[in-house]
Amino acid sequence: MSFLYFGHSQSLRIFVLKRTAFAIFCALFVLTDVSAQTPDSSLNSFAESLCREGLRSGKSYEYLTSLVRTAGHRLSGSEGAAKAVQWSLKTFQSLGVDSAWTEPVMVPHWVRGHEEGSIRSTSTQKRHISVSALGGSVATPAKGITAEVIEVRSFDELRTLGGKAKGKIVFFNRPMDPAALNPFEAYGKAVDQRGRGAIEAAKAGGVAALVRSMTTKPDDVPHTGAMQYDTTVSRIPAAAVGIQSAELISSLLAKGETVEATLQLDCKTLPDAESANVIAEIRGSEFPNEIVVIGGHLDSWDQGDGAHDDGAGCVQAVEALRLIKESGKRPQRTIRAVLWMNEENGLRGAFAYANARPPHERHLIGIEADAGGGVPLGFTIQGGRDTVASVRRLSSLLAPIGADKIFPGGGGADLIPLTRKGMPGMVLAVNPHRYFDYHHSANDVLEAVHPRELQLGACALAVMAYALAEEGL
Amino acid sequence: MSFLYFGHSQSLRIFVLKRTAFAIFCALFVLTDVSAQTPDSSLNSFAESLCREGLRSGKSYEYLTSLVRTAGHRLSGSEGAAKAVQWSLKTFQSLGVDSAWTEPVMVPHWVRGHEEGSIRSTSTQKRHISVSALGGSVATPAKGITAEVIEVRSFDELRTLGGKAKGKIVFFNRPMDPAALNPFEAYGKAVDQRGRGAIEAAKAGGVAALVRSMTTKPDDVPHTGAMQYDTTVSRIPAAAVGIQSAELISSLLAKGETVEATLQLDCKTLPDAESANVIAEIRGSEFPNEIVVIGGHLDSWDQGDGAHDDGAGCVQAVEALRLIKESGKRPQRTIRAVLWMNEENGLRGAFAYANARPPHERHLIGIEADAGGGVPLGFTIQGGRDTVASVRRLSSLLAPIGADKIFPGGGGADLIPLTRKGMPGMVLAVNPHRYFDYHHSANDVLEAVHPRELQLGACALAVMAYALAEEGL
Repeated sequence: MSFLYFGHSQSLRIFVLKRTAFAIFCALFVLTDVSAQTPDSSLNSFAESLCREGLRSGKSYEYLTSLVRTAGHRLSGSEGAAKAVQWSLKTFQSLGVDSAWTEPVMVPHWVRGHEEGSIRSTSTQKRHISVSALGGSVATPAKGITAEVIEVRSFDELRTLGGKAKGKIVFFNRPMDPAALNPFEAYGKAVDQRGRGAIEAAKAGGVAALVRSMTTKPDDVPHTGAMQYDTTVSRIPAAAVGIQSAELISSLLAKGETVEATLQLDCKTLPDAESANVIAEIRGSEFPNEIVVIGGHLDSWDQGDGAHDDGAGCVQAVEALRLIKESGKRPQRTIRAVLWMNEENGLRGAFAYANARPPHERHLIGIEADAGGGVPLGFTIQGGRDTVASVRRLSSLLAPIGADKIFPGGGGADLIPLTRKGMPGMVLAVNPHRYFDYHHSANDVLEAVHPRELQLGACALAVMAYALAEEGL
Repeated sequence: MSFLYFGHSQSLRIFVLKRTAFAIFCALFVLTDVSAQTPDSSLNSFAESLCREGLRSGKSYEYLTSLVRTAGHRLSGSEGAAKAVQWSLKTFQSLGVDSAWTEPVMVPHWVRGHEEGSIRSTSTQKRHISVSALGGSVATPAKGITAEVIEVRSFDELRTLGGKAKGKIVFFNRPMDPAALNPFEAYGKAVDQRGRGAIEAAKAGGVAALVRSMTTKPDDVPHTGAMQYDTTVSRIPAAAVGIQSAELISSLLAKGETVEATLQLDCKTLPDAESANVIAEIRGSEFPNEIVVIGGHLDSWDQGDGAHDDGAGCVQAVEALRLIKESGKRPQRTIRAVLWMNEENGLRGAFAYANARPPHERHLIGIEADAGGGVPLGFTIQGGRDTVASVRRLSSLLAPIGADKIFPGGGGADLIPLTRKGMPGMVLAVNPHRYFDYHHSANDVLEAVHPRELQLGACALAVMAYALAEEGL
């Protein structure tokens, strides 16, 4: 778009256009829904000033850069996770908030090691395929597992094969549905293959499970993630495979060729490791024992930087505290930021946090930021009708930045131990359409996060946390 | 986020978590605002099916790729613009719609030529600076203009300098305000420097104008755009300068150094050239003379691919027609797609279109897609209260994809000739926070457009156009 268009001999027209153009400048895309109603005007102007100050001098991207440069990826039990704990504590302390501390927790310690995959088919010489062990997988023998590949789209289809999967590598290749209006819906309908693929493959006599990556981005970067075993069948190795590799295997099979794959995974599970949640708070002026908890998870998968998942949520929680602290205003209730450890493969930090709460603490509501650093749209909320109504009223504070939608929905994985006890839970809702391009893969790097979008999410989190802490529910 | 977390000896917990996790899967981020109310259910289900079909088999990105590979950038009068006209006509014809035609229009023909900039200062040897002539600028002499640089932040500041700007290159360096909640607000408050910088600099006796690029992305890619001259002062050359180059010059001046710049611009304005708008329509079953017009502008600036500005809007209009045609449904009123020529530096196509309308045609409403290919949020609308209410009711059809916000605002530059005659105008509103990273620069390339976001915008446009054509206002 231009908005400045000037002929050389059309001065009247130009004048009219310029005035019109300027009116468009000023009005176009100002993201205030006219139907929005706001709480009292002082809170309203404070919210706007927090957002403007955040956009002017925000540190979210600086924090994220520092976190990933200092710690790299942060799988539970790893050196990166330990560095991230120290980084977080130091960063919280630098804010000058009322307290900052770590809370110890023992976490699973799985390490990836070397991994490699290849195929041969009737018509094809050995070809590399992009694979990545699923988190928690057992290793293959050192020389790898070599076996014929059998492709299925579902567990039901696998069960109908009778003995045909025996001795084979079971290849789960049901894509995330691109027609799902929301990618999370598509993820929810495909991720059983990753979660239970190894169990179902083992039941069918398979020797390994190969799972199409949970993404719609048509590259060949494998996307890892958590998987399960159960006690009824043997533990077989399981790996994600990149979309292009998956399509290659599928196309060879579709031609009727026999495809043999070799998987070499050197991963292992070590004894549980010491780690920690990292916590900081601004204490409430009137009701310090009433707590609005915000946060993200400090652990990540071990590929890329974990920049979106969930470096973004962590630095947004830090930045929200910083913005509120810098504003000089102290809300009536306590705002506590928790960077949970081990969301990805255990939720140990979440349970440790919930279990360690002293009786005088009352958790009013929680907000987790764990959907990536995309442009914020609002919040999902899991709670009763009155809670939803209260939050919706406050969310109108975020209409000026377009983050005022309230969707009934989930409350954040790390909040589960608290929501099970009745606390309402929320998640910062952001543009979901790019998230699975990055999720659990080497694509999840700092450069995939847009500084302004990340900062806007921090502003939204700060405003909502402050408003809840000031106004209550 | 994980949503799959499994300890090894915690089966009850696992079960509870799995159920909870699945509930979160299904509910989290489903972008339906619970307060949304929809029109009748058949329209509602048609809207959803259009969106799903668009996401399943959409061609927006394929069209955009084809357009930029075929035509490249498409400045009015250029070879690229001519190729784009042919591409558009052929593409419209391939849809099997009721008619597709071109509408001739004479357009300005400015060509850039070679351009180069450098500085020297008291402490600095010759250093390259990134410059790009503003559209419509006159050339410098072949050897360039070399003069001392004087920096100002506003026209007012320039006026207070008295004779100090005489013989100098006037450097307008007021940034887009990062604290503006919406980047369009920041653009609106900074772009006078680009639009009128050459006039004001000439009034002050300056020999050239150098204007800080209209962007907040901290790279050194210059962002061009339209500029004006007037008849009261001489025409002096004007160029945009990249942000890093601008910061360099400013920092040298701040140290008290004398900075001399050399600008070489070889641009020129040729005689007006023949070009065309490209138009296609699906005629209404009941009221074929009542028209809902949708579209984008086919011309672009001459750097990058013009992928966001406005390749995106053009292919979304094509794709909207395709989706509606493929659905087999014919709305009561006509849906016409217009790809306007010369939005960027003349609006000639917009006026030609408005002037060429036969008396029997009634334009009910228009929607321009010209804010880039970002994730759609809803629509801005310029119209009376009843119109806004009607459109808001229909917009609820887009709640499932989160594109249901209606903002009062502008109606699209190419719609100005029609909105001046009373037609309500709308613009597809998308995430505005990345737009000025690309706008009018070499950053505006195909790779900067996200296929799913682009397609979602096309779906939103298709649904709104169909609903308006079916339901009226």
